[in-house]
Amino acid sequence: MKRTERVGAIIKTLTDTPNKLYPLQYFCDAFDVAKSSISEDINIADTAVRFTGTGYIETISGAKGGVRFSPDITPEQLLVLQEEFCSRIKDSSRILGGGFLYTSDIMFDTHLMNRLATVFAKKFKEKEADYVATVETKGISLASMVARQLNLPLIIIRREAKVSEGSTVSINYFSGSYDRVQKMSISKRAVVPGSKAIIIDDFMRGGGSTKGISDILSEFEVTVVGTGIAIASMLPEKKKIDDYTAIVFLGDVDEEQKTIEVIPNYQIF
Amino acid sequence: MKRTERVGAIIKTLTDTPNKLYPLQYFCDAFDVAKSSISEDINIADTAVRFTGTGYIETISGAKGGVRFSPDITPEQLLVLQEEFCSRIKDSSRILGGGFLYTSDIMFDTHLMNRLATVFAKKFKEKEADYVATVETKGISLASMVARQLNLPLIIIRREAKVSEGSTVSINYFSGSYDRVQKMSISKRAVVPGSKAIIIDDFMRGGGSTKGISDILSEFEVTVVGTGIAIASMLPEKKKIDDYTAIVFLGDVDEEQKTIEVIPNYQIF
Repeated sequence: MKRTERVGAIIKTLTDTPNKLYPLQYFCDAFDVAKSSISEDINIADTAVRFTGTGYIETISGAKGGVRFSPDITPEQLLVLQEEFCSRIKDSSRILGGGFLYTSDIMFDTHLMNRLATVFAKKFKEKEADYVATVETKGISLASMVARQLNLPLIIIRREAKVSEGSTVSINYFSGSYDRVQKMSISKRAVVPGSKAIIIDDFMRGGGSTKGISDILSEFEVTVVGTGIAIASMLPEKKKIDDYTAIVFLGDVDEEQKTIEVIPNYQIF
Repeated sequence: MKRTERVGAIIKTLTDTPNKLYPLQYFCDAFDVAKSSISEDINIADTAVRFTGTGYIETISGAKGGVRFSPDITPEQLLVLQEEFCSRIKDSSRILGGGFLYTSDIMFDTHLMNRLATVFAKKFKEKEADYVATVETKGISLASMVARQLNLPLIIIRREAKVSEGSTVSINYFSGSYDRVQKMSISKRAVVPGSKAIIIDDFMRGGGSTKGISDILSEFEVTVVGTGIAIASMLPEKKKIDDYTAIVFLGDVDEEQKTIEVIPNYQIF
């Protein structure tokens, strides 16, 4: 097999499973070549991947070492992505009244979500989280992509305790968006007490729902080490949680003028 | 830039967005080289990707032509995947009583779901579907991965009509698993009437829920052109829908003996 093909096959394998560590020996066996050749291949693979601006290949030394692909995004690509996301949101036909916007088509555009996920995968990579957590339903596609890119298990918090979840812990919390008390429930089997989680959600207004996720996780002594929100509203300025990263900010939704104000968050990194 | 690096960058770009068609010119511009060179690069990229058994690169000729990556799985890899999936399910600690199994940790293992998704992406590739559809919640991660691999929008059918969905169509259906009437709701904005959909779900017992998805889609004159189920129970043998593809079949769950019978579907392709 030629080097060009080997490098291609290495890239395909590593990028299929982001942040999964492969021992160098894995590729030596797959291609039946020496470690020195594989090391060179990996350097070339890294250059190729970096050229696309979508990630890099890291070599971790030591007995438990190996090689892995980490997704990345350049500042220029981030801005392009944010502007595309803003312009999708700005479409005035999304206005549902009562300040609500229809965004399901965006949040279930999986190629777009996969790109947004990279922003959070980059932002939270060093947090050493054990899980990605979200509450059903609209953020699940995004959270799935983040979990995949960080090679972490996903925890879905349910609105209702389901028989297929086994024994569950539930809490009630106040949602400002819906102006009522809502419920959240999490399977006891889903979480190891004392672990660390990243929260991912599609939308935040007052932060009640995100605070709810944080509260229910704290029932298991799980520490929240990062919170990523696709769209955060500018108002109210004071949220129920302080520390979160939004990709874009939603301003005024004017039902009469049919305008939607939305701007990129320029301070993600 | 060297050929080896260029081939790597092409692979990364194509495999990031499966089944998305790129004009050859896209890569000519990206690397500032002639079409003849890019054509050769793509042949090498195809060989490299095929070596991993995880897909192939197709060139579509004509004015609307271009190049795209299609995910694939070899018969040997499929069997390995099915056996891994079976052995994860067989763990006796999953037994919840009443014939229910705890499977959320599996259905939210996004690397595993991404591999299972390839089975359905391969199976349904030629169906020319317009959407991938699922009902919340447990199949969403799998359905997201299928939608991403087929480059199709995802439709999530909700259990409850939400204000953020705008105007919705709802149906009631009988779920054998839960032995009660359940509700499903779909946003009118989510679907173009007269289109085609693939249904993806995590589990099927009697097929009531899948039949429900099909029924609610038929309210929009949407034709179901394929149904993929991660785990289908062997009993009842007669389901409410006839045409579906399961990855594995679940047999007897013996609460006393603490055994779970589960076998691969050997007739997927």
